[in-house]
Amino acid sequence: MSPERPGPVAAVPVGTASGTYPVLVGNGLRARIPRFLGEYAPGYRYAVISDERVAELYGRSTVDACRRAGLKADLYSFPEGEASKTRDSWSRLTDSLLADGLGRDGVVVAVGGGVTGDLAGFVAATYLRGIPAVQVPTSLVAMIDASVGGKTGVDVPSGKNLVGAFHPPRVVIADPETVATLPRRERAQGLAEALKHGAVLDRPYFERLTDGAEALLAGEPDATYAAVLRSVELKARVVSEDEREEGHRQVLNFGHTLGHALEAASDYELGHGSAVAAGMVLEARLGERLGITEPGTGGFLRQALSPFGLGEVPKRAWDMDAVLRYLVSDKKVRSGRPRYVLLERLGVIHREGGWSHEVPDQDVREVLQEALHEG
Amino acid sequence: MSPERPGPVAAVPVGTASGTYPVLVGNGLRARIPRFLGEYAPGYRYAVISDERVAELYGRSTVDACRRAGLKADLYSFPEGEASKTRDSWSRLTDSLLADGLGRDGVVVAVGGGVTGDLAGFVAATYLRGIPAVQVPTSLVAMIDASVGGKTGVDVPSGKNLVGAFHPPRVVIADPETVATLPRRERAQGLAEALKHGAVLDRPYFERLTDGAEALLAGEPDATYAAVLRSVELKARVVSEDEREEGHRQVLNFGHTLGHALEAASDYELGHGSAVAAGMVLEARLGERLGITEPGTGGFLRQALSPFGLGEVPKRAWDMDAVLRYLVSDKKVRSGRPRYVLLERLGVIHREGGWSHEVPDQDVREVLQEALHEG
Repeated sequence: MSPERPGPVAAVPVGTASGTYPVLVGNGLRARIPRFLGEYAPGYRYAVISDERVAELYGRSTVDACRRAGLKADLYSFPEGEASKTRDSWSRLTDSLLADGLGRDGVVVAVGGGVTGDLAGFVAATYLRGIPAVQVPTSLVAMIDASVGGKTGVDVPSGKNLVGAFHPPRVVIADPETVATLPRRERAQGLAEALKHGAVLDRPYFERLTDGAEALLAGEPDATYAAVLRSVELKARVVSEDEREEGHRQVLNFGHTLGHALEAASDYELGHGSAVAAGMVLEARLGERLGITEPGTGGFLRQALSPFGLGEVPKRAWDMDAVLRYLVSDKKVRSGRPRYVLLERLGVIHREGGWSHEVPDQDVREVLQEALHEG
Repeated sequence: MSPERPGPVAAVPVGTASGTYPVLVGNGLRARIPRFLGEYAPGYRYAVISDERVAELYGRSTVDACRRAGLKADLYSFPEGEASKTRDSWSRLTDSLLADGLGRDGVVVAVGGGVTGDLAGFVAATYLRGIPAVQVPTSLVAMIDASVGGKTGVDVPSGKNLVGAFHPPRVVIADPETVATLPRRERAQGLAEALKHGAVLDRPYFERLTDGAEALLAGEPDATYAAVLRSVELKARVVSEDEREEGHRQVLNFGHTLGHALEAASDYELGHGSAVAAGMVLEARLGERLGITEPGTGGFLRQALSPFGLGEVPKRAWDMDAVLRYLVSDKKVRSGRPRYVLLERLGVIHREGGWSHEVPDQDVREVLQEALHEG
């Protein structure tokens, strides 16, 4: 990677049932959005959707740049935060677009973090039964994870992301420089998903991430570019094989079964990355108990994650029954039973009998018991 | 067609981006639903969705039959009528399914008319980002039109069907006998779409329908079977070629541009079939004005539709500006302009320059003026 501008630009192809779209990764790419829209998603009018904070940082300037380039574009915003990822916000955004007469030849441009990508993506997926979407992730977690793979959706009272659709974008435009404006804590949340990619698919990548923890946590653009690119490559490979998560894509759920349940049981006070990282450690321990995962993997993960401030279940008054209840309301439940992705060892998934597994309740309970009450 | 039971059963294949599904048409098929579910949509649990009236007629007995056949099945119902086809009903049904723990291995079975198919189909399309759906249309319009082609959705304040998704079912089970339980007026509404199929694609079929008007309006099973089968064949052919309505499928919108606007401007007091039938006559007249449609076609259509009680714009205090406003909020708007499907003559679509066309506002206004104030 060169520190000069313009830096390298990579285009990673992602295959879907209906064709292939590129994830463009490059420092400074945000300046070229209008050109990419014209090239990958020609439309009569562009609806740029951002939360109120990102609207000020990048949304407004994207609209202005589009207009200067001769494109019709308007900005739509919603209040910042996961609490906005609801059917209500989706309805309000949809109704605004309808009121403005956006037609089937309109395009939704999601500029923001994971919440924006999911929410605006779901607006696009269901607007007039589906119009094109472009994803412009501005947070690390959105670049590394959420913007690749076409998942869109909203949260409902029963849980996160339980309502949604697969709606692959026409193009993803990821500019790692925007990550520098995030708080350090938020970068750590994004790095949890990168570490997961390494843990399930690419041990050398996992090690590069832990070796470069400080530069990544600081949002240093070249280090961030390298991590975003590798994570996008890994995720694109898996998603291209299995868009609908019927097979290989399930490996990306490592850490997510227990992670989601902890996140929900904490009333979402626990960040998604923190929850997933803690879930990875616990699911590694679960695999060890079952004789599937190499002994010591849970402990190793916990140590490796600690420079990122990740991997521990934070002390709080956990309600074990709530955690167990959320396990059963998870999307990954099959035949009424939660499913777990298990490691054989770091970088290698246990595939015998499928990509995910049922495990005895008692083992789950004991791993949780130990974690929720340790320390 | 034979009057004995069991009568003929046809399986019409419909092609989609993700494979092919059959529309099964046969008198008495409703008794074999559990077998078809096992064959075409194996699942861990079935959520049968009906409006409250159809729940009593067919929904409850479908659930009972499933249970007797060893399938897990539950009934979910909502208040009858188009007023239920909302995001609120969709949310409530979704939340009920989530509360009952329906997983990704669940299947939605929509038993009912067009509202149920669209609403339950949209629940399935967005539940955990999409689970399989089975359509069991019980009204004529649902059999003939709505259940073929994978369109799902709900109405919003700006208009009908403006929010939704393409979600092809695993199988459609159409039993024309159920049409006999409908009021005659409702059968006429369904026949409007059948007549449209004939008008745009198959003049001999149009003539068979008008010749057999009395038997069809009476819901006679063999006549109904023949009409359902031919309409399904015609629609399946078009939809298989062009699932997303980017080309040929647009011809099915004949009568719908003006029809939808009239329907909306009447506050939906005008039935969909009545609106479409009146729209066909008006769009034929529009084509005549433009020198595209064979002279006399509008008058011929109006006469041919009259035994069905269709084809006239009913007298009421029409608000011309409202009609024109709804024209521009239509889904088919492109570059901010409404689009019209135009006939060359009965059974033949005008294809020069595309499947649908912009026309001068003044011509639309004059055709409407004449129709809204005639008589």
